[in-house]
This record gives sequence, structure tokens and C-alpha cells, in this order.
Amino acid sequence: MSTDNHPFDRAVALVATGVPGQYQGQASQDYWNMVGPYGGITAASLVRAMQQHPQCLGDPVSITVNYAAAVGAGAFVIDANPVRTNRSTQHWLLTVKQADEAGVMQVITTATAVTAARRETWSATDQPMPAVTPAADVPRVPALVGAVEWLNRYEMRFLDGMLPMKEDGTEHDSQSRLWVRDNPPRPLDFASLAAVSDVFFPRVWLRRAKRVPAGTVSITVYFHAGREELAAAGDAPLLAQARGQEFRNGFFDQTAQLWSASGQMLASSHQIVYYKE
Amino acid sequence: MSTDNHPFDRAVALVATGVPGQYQGQASQDYWNMVGPYGGITAASLVRAMQQHPQCLGDPVSITVNYAAAVGAGAFVIDANPVRTNRSTQHWLLTVKQADEAGVMQVITTATAVTAARRETWSATDQPMPAVTPAADVPRVPALVGAVEWLNRYEMRFLDGMLPMKEDGTEHDSQSRLWVRDNPPRPLDFASLAAVSDVFFPRVWLRRAKRVPAGTVSITVYFHAGREELAAAGDAPLLAQARGQEFRNGFFDQTAQLWSASGQMLASSHQIVYYKE
Repeated sequence: MSTDNHPFDRAVALVATGVPGQYQGQASQDYWNMVGPYGGITAASLVRAMQQHPQCLGDPVSITVNYAAAVGAGAFVIDANPVRTNRSTQHWLLTVKQADEAGVMQVITTATAVTAARRETWSATDQPMPAVTPAADVPRVPALVGAVEWLNRYEMRFLDGMLPMKEDGTEHDSQSRLWVRDNPPRPLDFASLAAVSDVFFPRVWLRRAKRVPAGTVSITVYFHAGREELAAAGDAPLLAQARGQEFRNGFFDQTAQLWSASGQMLASSHQIVYYKE
Repeated sequence: MSTDNHPFDRAVALVATGVPGQYQGQASQDYWNMVGPYGGITAASLVRAMQQHPQCLGDPVSITVNYAAAVGAGAFVIDANPVRTNRSTQHWLLTVKQADEAGVMQVITTATAVTAARRETWSATDQPMPAVTPAADVPRVPALVGAVEWLNRYEMRFLDGMLPMKEDGTEHDSQSRLWVRDNPPRPLDFASLAAVSDVFFPRVWLRRAKRVPAGTVSITVYFHAGREELAAAGDAPLLAQARGQEFRNGFFDQTAQLWSASGQMLASSHQIVYYKE
């Protein structure tokens, strides 16, 4: 499948509006979540906006996306502003705006990011990929009738920590491990790596075996992969691991790692998530 | 000691400039690092700016601070902009600017943050405080001759992962655990909790037993403590734990947790750090 025609590429397609650093996109029905597009696809669109900016220096190293309001159907506008350019790093402020019912543009999402021209240095890991069953030997989660649409955009194979089928309030730990890739498969890039970093259902659902209302407030992705590591990862499944840390008075945080099938950590990610009750 | 007269309070003191949401501070010599103030104190000043803003809703839940350039000596200006206010959450864009040699204001730091009016809900932890020797039984790190000034602003008692005394390039894991509090002791608040979240020396120094040039590019702090938990923590030492995850081509990430002495997680934090060679 050509990447141009992949649902992911259609979802993150942006058009320059003519205002410097401003791009228009369309909220993707292919990645629809409950009340708006999947948060990961918004993060991916912001990565794309930086990459399309004529002044972009290097590749993404870090992005933090804050979900101030649900993105609604229709057009949205991204303002991508490289506020500081150093010799090898560049700092960005980004906002996503969308017209409200009265036609007034409102801030829906804020973000900051860092891009950098990376050089090869001494490298090591302190978080090796856990030894797990290869993706090919793990059953694929079947398409769920009535599930939110974005779930159909990922091929998932759970090793542990799948969403409890029975909501019995039994408390257990909040770790999930799964093999995951785009559906249909698509070569990994910075934007799709940002998107898949948000693939985990809310940890509170697993911890409590209860689906309470929950939504990401802020996510951070650190990109450890450069272009070569992305190319090597290709369209093979990634091992994705997430675990909640603290659930306290309406918010919990989550720490996550994504490795290529060959054991290279491609990204680490963190988020803080609102939950009710 | 009155908190007004504490070095921390002097360091984060801000004066409204008269422009809405704009506050002026002074780079603190008391918290001086190698080429500018300690990054944690900049994060703390940003927390203070939000708290002083007349439209601030609730308390900090999350802040991400991006260090675009070193803060120099003298005055700096914070612009704190609550770009979206919902019923119980508020989203902020913040910048720190400072005049360059030509007198032109330059962006030095960018940040986003979320504040929220929190309510009591079901709560739990998935990252309990490790069982460690109590602070009183751990020797305090003596004042170091020639050390950077900010180190004198913290009382530190290392349980493990102290900076190697000998730079022999011996590789080992990058975890540190220490008891830490302000020096002199000072009741914990949101600003000082943000500051202490950056207390860890660069993990690459520990991992490699070698002090290569390194500096934080972006730090995120998730506040799990509300006002009651902060009051309960008082001025007692916190248990602070940090570990590197991936060191790759000039950048590594770190994940950290801070617990009160009674075992409550008060904050979790993550950062991505530039390193050379």
C-alpha cells in the first residue's frame, strides 16, 4: 500500500494556509474516539506540522501535547512556531485551534516540542526490552463490534494486561504489554511513532477492572529513534509497555516504552490522565 | 525561619509588571548552576507565576518546562497565559524571556502547564515507596568545596547511586535514591516540589562514571499531591528516586519519583537531557 493512501497519512495530511507556520487539517473519522479523534493522531499532526515547516531543524526529540478540549469534527488549524533556534536544537510552541459554534477560533490543544540535529555518540540502555513471546506467536485481538473507530487502525497482540472482559472491580496491577503496529502495516516514521505512544487504554480501567470516564490531559513523547532506527523498524510490530504509577484524586500518571522487534527502544512516553469517581 | 526570608522564596519572588499575566523575576545567585540558575528553580518560578495570576484555577497538576537557552544573570520576564479554562481544568502557555546583549528580548524557556480543582476520588498506587533506611540514619552529603551553588540549597542523604568519586568509565546502572529537602528546611509547596524534581545529577554521569557535558532539555512534573498532602509532608525529607532509560545519540531520558517520608507519592517526573560525546 502506498503511504499516501494509508488512513494514517490521510489523517495527518496538512495544508499550509498561507499564514507563516500555519497549517490546516481535518479531524479524522478513521481515528475517531468517543468524542473526537484519538489523542495520538493529534500528536502526530503536530509532529507533521513541525516537519512541514520550512525552518524546521533536525528531527523530533521531545513533544508534550496538552488536550485542552476535544477536537470536534471538521477543520482545525495548527500554528507551529519555532520560538528559539540554537546551533543543533530548536524549540517549538504549537497550538491547535478550532472554530466554536459561534465561529470563534478556540484553543483546543497546546504543545511544546524540541527538534534536534542528532549525532552518533556513546549509547546504552538502562531499560532493556523484556523477554516476551514473538508477535507471530501471540493471537491478534479480533475486531470488536461497536468499538471506537481508531482501534481498527491498529493491529494489537496482547501479552498481558488486556482490558478486563468482566468489570468486577477486582484490583490488580496496571501493566500492559502488547505487540502493536498500524493496520494495515505502514513503515514507521516520527509522526506514527508519536501516535502509537498513546495506544494504551486508560490504566485506571485495568487497575480497577472498571471503565470509569477517563481522558488524557497531557502526554509527553521522547524520541530515542533517529531516521536510521525508524527505517530499521520498518512496518514490523513494536513492543509497547505501559504502567500506571500513582492514581490520586482524579488524575493518574502512566509511564510507557516502545521497542522495535529487534530490541531497540524507539520512544518512551508519559501521560497524566483525568478519571472520574 | 520565616518562609519569606528563605533563599527559595527570594529566588522565586516575582513582581507583576503591569502587563496582564506578566511577571518579572531575578536570576538567583543562590541557586546558580554552571552557566545559569538551576533548572528546578526556573520551573518553580513558572509555578509561582501561575499561582500569582488572578485567573488561576485550582492547583498544578502538570508542568513541562523546556530549556531553550541558559537563563543569564539579572532580570527575566515570565508571560503566563491561561489559554483555555474549562470547568475544573485550566491550560497554560508560559514563556521566559530575557534581554540579549543588544537589549532584544529573547525566548529562554517555554512551558505548558495544567492546573485543576481536584476532588477526592478512589486513589491507589502502582509504584509504592521502596523500603529504605530512614533519613535520620543516612549520612548527609557534606558541603563540597568548589561545588555549584545550588547544591548548597539542598540537604541530601544518598541511599545509592551517588555520583562516582572516581571517573573510571566503569558502566553500571543509572539509578539513584536519596533523601532530600530544602536547606535550611522549609515547608513543601507546589513550587518547591517542582524545584526538587530536578535535583538529580545527569544520569549519564552515573551510567558511565564520567562527567560529560550534559543539560536538561525538557522536564515534566506530574503533581500527585494536593494541598493536604503537601501540608502533611511539611519540611521532612522526601525520598527521591531517578533512573535513566535510554541513552542514545546525544540525548537520554530519566524517570523519577518523589515520596513523602510517610510513603505517599507526591510527584513523578521525567526529563530528556542532552549529553556530549
